[in-house]
Amino acid sequence: MNTQTIRVNEIFGPTIQGEGALIGQPTVFVRTGGCDYRCSWCDTLHAVDSAYRDDWHPMTPAAIMMQVEILSGHCPLTVSLSGGNPAIQPLGGLIDLGRKEGYRFALETQGSIARDWFRDLDVLTLSPKPPSSGMVTDWQKLAECVEAAGPSTQLALKVVIFDENDYAYAREIASRYPQQSLYLQPGNHTPPAPDQEDGVIDMAGIMDRMRWLIDRVTTDRLYSATVLPQLHTLIWGNLRGV
Amino acid sequence: MNTQTIRVNEIFGPTIQGEGALIGQPTVFVRTGGCDYRCSWCDTLHAVDSAYRDDWHPMTPAAIMMQVEILSGHCPLTVSLSGGNPAIQPLGGLIDLGRKEGYRFALETQGSIARDWFRDLDVLTLSPKPPSSGMVTDWQKLAECVEAAGPSTQLALKVVIFDENDYAYAREIASRYPQQSLYLQPGNHTPPAPDQEDGVIDMAGIMDRMRWLIDRVTTDRLYSATVLPQLHTLIWGNLRGV
Ligand code: SF4
Ligand code: SF4
Repeated sequence: MNTQTIRVNEIFGPTIQGEGALIGQPTVFVRTGGCDYRCSWCDTLHAVDSAYRDDWHPMTPAAIMMQVEILSGHCPLTVSLSGGNPAIQPLGGLIDLGRKEGYRFALETQGSIARDWFRDLDVLTLSPKPPSSGMVTDWQKLAECVEAAGPSTQLALKVVIFDENDYAYAREIASRYPQQSLYLQPGNHTPPAPDQEDGVIDMAGIMDRMRWLIDRVTTDRLYSATVLPQLHTLIWGNLRGV
Repeated sequence: MNTQTIRVNEIFGPTIQGEGALIGQPTVFVRTGGCDYRCSWCDTLHAVDSAYRDDWHPMTPAAIMMQVEILSGHCPLTVSLSGGNPAIQPLGGLIDLGRKEGYRFALETQGSIARDWFRDLDVLTLSPKPPSSGMVTDWQKLAECVEAAGPSTQLALKVVIFDENDYAYAREIASRYPQQSLYLQPGNHTPPAPDQEDGVIDMAGIMDRMRWLIDRVTTDRLYSATVLPQLHTLIWGNLRGV
């Protein structure tokens, strides 16, 4: 039995996945604590900033799956592993355990750390961070993450876009990985403070940015891209745990 | 050369697909005129009501593809065939022609008329109409449409939901077709009049209905369903041609 513990920030759901390849699909989220990045516009600082590490609970895979099964009413669905950066946690045992019960696993990470257990994922979303984040992409690490996907892993690339530089970065991603599906998502200019549950959302600003992004993608004939908002932000604002 | 004409209400794009299986993907829309239904809440009456038939232009497949190629800059993408009910038009020749040029074809219909050329579609969305529409589903016809999908046709079911009766109808669809992907979409309570381009949208009402629907789906463990809004309505309201 795998008893290596995972630092868990929160487990919640079922709710719908609000972003990317699984948008609209029912899911339970397991959010892990800790991240190797510090993006300027991070909207999950409570799972990143070590000031909040007392809220990250060490849990075994069995304890996590028990919680997931209670929330899902013991009916298998997709479990979304997010963070922080979930790739810094030892998640292989959890995935093994859950898959035996019929659960599917999706993971989203910035692509800075590749793990051999990525091959056991049903969906791997790599979300490399554009210039506005203040982070610098390690292209070699990103390539290792792409290669770590298994034969039955659905791979998706996702780029959050705040400005023209970010859009140029997304085009760079598209040209490096022309065969992979690419999701573009307007950034949330009004992320919550880490101790704030329900900051007001600039809905009109998000929609302006959707229109701008759709215009750029169609004008540039970047037809391989899919443009989607953060649906949960539109529905619930910055409220957590929904 | 296929010169059988198709009654076209409008051709526009590229823009993103706002609904269902292809949500967020760049597409050119070909909207045909005429429908065998009269849903109480139809939001495309300009393509349904024969009072507007003077705006439906008979076009050959070649003329339609020329327009699609101009709009798409001769870069192949997905063409969305919608209506009205596009199944009442002879679209097989258009699909053949466009596929030779590398275009992909998606069609959405209520599932009242099956066509042998459905098998050539890349995506077939069947959107049977729930009780609030005032229409009655012919289950035999719907089954014929499901069977008309080809081996490489991605089939999706979609139900627009206004109330509890509609939701019960969606569950009936889910139990009849447990293997098919099912999209649930809150209805637009504020559809435009046929001669009105930009009626005001009840955005808060749509989001309330999203929350209700997500709550129902997760409470009932209907995990096979995907819950999505009409994205284009959120972005552009009832504005046409975007
Ligand atoms: S990678 Fe994600 S979790 Fe980490 S700091 Fe950036 S936005 Fe926050
Ligand atoms: S089937 Fe569609 S186009 Fe026809 S009346 Fe109903 S909503 Fe309108």
